[in-house]
Amino acid sequence: MKINWSTLTGPTLLIHKGRAQRNIATMQAKAQSAGVSLRPHFKTHQSPIIGKWFGPADSTPIAVSSLAMAQQFADAGWQDIHLAIPINPRELPALNSLASRVTLTITIEHEDAIELLERMNAPFRLMIEVDTGYGRTGISWQQHARIRRMLDAAQALTQAQRLGLMVHSGHSYKSHDDAGIQAVHHESSSRLKELLDTMQWPGGLWISVGDTPTCSRMDRFPGAHEIRPGNYVFYDLQQRLIGSCDWQDIAAAVACPVIARYPERGEVVVHGGAVHFSKDFALVGERPVYGQVMNKTDRGWGAPLGQGELIGLSQEHGKVALPANMIRELKLGDMLVIVPAHSCLTMAALREFIVFDD
Amino acid sequence: MKINWSTLTGPTLLIHKGRAQRNIATMQAKAQSAGVSLRPHFKTHQSPIIGKWFGPADSTPIAVSSLAMAQQFADAGWQDIHLAIPINPRELPALNSLASRVTLTITIEHEDAIELLERMNAPFRLMIEVDTGYGRTGISWQQHARIRRMLDAAQALTQAQRLGLMVHSGHSYKSHDDAGIQAVHHESSSRLKELLDTMQWPGGLWISVGDTPTCSRMDRFPGAHEIRPGNYVFYDLQQRLIGSCDWQDIAAAVACPVIARYPERGEVVVHGGAVHFSKDFALVGERPVYGQVMNKTDRGWGAPLGQGELIGLSQEHGKVALPANMIRELKLGDMLVIVPAHSCLTMAALREFIVFDD
Repeated sequence: MKINWSTLTGPTLLIHKGRAQRNIATMQAKAQSAGVSLRPHFKTHQSPIIGKWFGPADSTPIAVSSLAMAQQFADAGWQDIHLAIPINPRELPALNSLASRVTLTITIEHEDAIELLERMNAPFRLMIEVDTGYGRTGISWQQHARIRRMLDAAQALTQAQRLGLMVHSGHSYKSHDDAGIQAVHHESSSRLKELLDTMQWPGGLWISVGDTPTCSRMDRFPGAHEIRPGNYVFYDLQQRLIGSCDWQDIAAAVACPVIARYPERGEVVVHGGAVHFSKDFALVGERPVYGQVMNKTDRGWGAPLGQGELIGLSQEHGKVALPANMIRELKLGDMLVIVPAHSCLTMAALREFIVFDD
Repeated sequence: MKINWSTLTGPTLLIHKGRAQRNIATMQAKAQSAGVSLRPHFKTHQSPIIGKWFGPADSTPIAVSSLAMAQQFADAGWQDIHLAIPINPRELPALNSLASRVTLTITIEHEDAIELLERMNAPFRLMIEVDTGYGRTGISWQQHARIRRMLDAAQALTQAQRLGLMVHSGHSYKSHDDAGIQAVHHESSSRLKELLDTMQWPGGLWISVGDTPTCSRMDRFPGAHEIRPGNYVFYDLQQRLIGSCDWQDIAAAVACPVIARYPERGEVVVHGGAVHFSKDFALVGERPVYGQVMNKTDRGWGAPLGQGELIGLSQEHGKVALPANMIRELKLGDMLVIVPAHSCLTMAALREFIVFDD
């Protein structure tokens, strides 16, 4: 499983199997030592091939963020799937069908969804999404009485088999160090605890938390039964800047051929644009950076290349800042290896990838 | 060709055929009256179905921005294809094969590429990309002597059948009105004229220019033999803010189901995220806006909805600002119709679409 650089023609996603498997093992060990289950979020890779690196399909619980992903992984053998996005009533027939063949966990965040779920014929697990500060989806943790009423109503659903609460503290992505991640984690944990202490739900609730920064850097997940990170399998430039990982943990990069060189501008242009990287960026100071150029090696890539950044993207073109002396040595068609700002979106854009190891 | 709203389940790209065909016809009339050929850029839609709206495949010259697109359209019957991105040496065997079955135009912007092209066995047309101010790819218009030397070398290539210069003034996208577009257009035209006047190339060169803002708002293209706009088939929020089009010219929007409502925040969340819209945005004042919510009608959409904007995107979630009174009337699963910031990237992300007319 070596990269045969001479056979690559266009922008190519490279997946470092050894690193990805190490990231998977590290998170499994973390979950075990913290006494929580691990339910990896498969939206990051959307690939049954990579999915099997996490363990056997039929015994690995997973999270996904669309019905299409849930169906894809069910077809490929996964049996325990949490659709971790609020229910879309238009998908109810498909959810019913899916729930009849796998252990499906459905997410809701409004009373209206309870009425919908009365129409489910197949058994399912149910999570109510609680917002502990991110401000995207979920019922505010402060609405104790409302959450209790929803749980009461959910308990009356014939087919609902396990009730729980789901939290996603996506604002951990705004951190730049462990102190920032810890602040988000502690706030979220204490808000969740306040909610659980107030409700004192008989028999308990299944509590699912977790995002990659928190799960990577924190060791304890108070009140949680499972963690649900996804991006950690590959990590990326954003996660490096947050402090979730080190450079040598990053397992995904895009090889892009150089198609134009401008030493006088300190830039080259690669074939590798918004349709490959997505237009997500990481802020380096106040500059948007779409990817970090790495030192290319025969076997993959090494350390980040100083002053090597993907600084602009149009549909198929990528503008890369590089030191002028390096630009003068580059030939047309030479490959640059670039770690994307956001590996989940790069994977979603490219879909195809080459697996290698060094 | 009506939209059957009840059959839509997830995020769905809607293409208004009548408007797209009107946009196509308007640009054809513009080219005719300006005395230039029209070579529409098919990167915007990447679809043979929509491509045929421009005229018969075998008599419509087109531009594309990747080898994969060129191959796709060649397979679907297009005969005159300009690959309008600088040549990637790794694709030379594929270009040779393509040039043996269609009239292929290749783009170069460096002397090194001339040597490569000596290895072409099939005939091709050749464009040298000239940068008249955009600063992405191309040789600076000021490098008269260098461009002349490249043309001399190109003329010695056995298989090169037509020589020309290509300009893309992508900085017109930074305009906000006709005066801004005109300033870019005049600057680019006069720089091109200066280059052509200085070189006095015997027999003339084929000159290709054009981007959607300039081609939509300007009437004359001095020195050009063809224009090469792409986005105008659909337009989008960015083009509306630039002033390239009116709201009723926009032919692409994404229908997204509402999955969460927060009247207290003035926001709803839809299923419709970065993997559907891309993360490209338009600046409204200093705010990044990923899409404009339109008034949904039985037959499609009407005018833009005041205070209705797609203001945040994660992988599958879209955060939409809406007036609170409207939010209170929305039901889970109701569809919002959202014009994307950048229709080319939305089309590239979604690939599938529904064609309708009203």
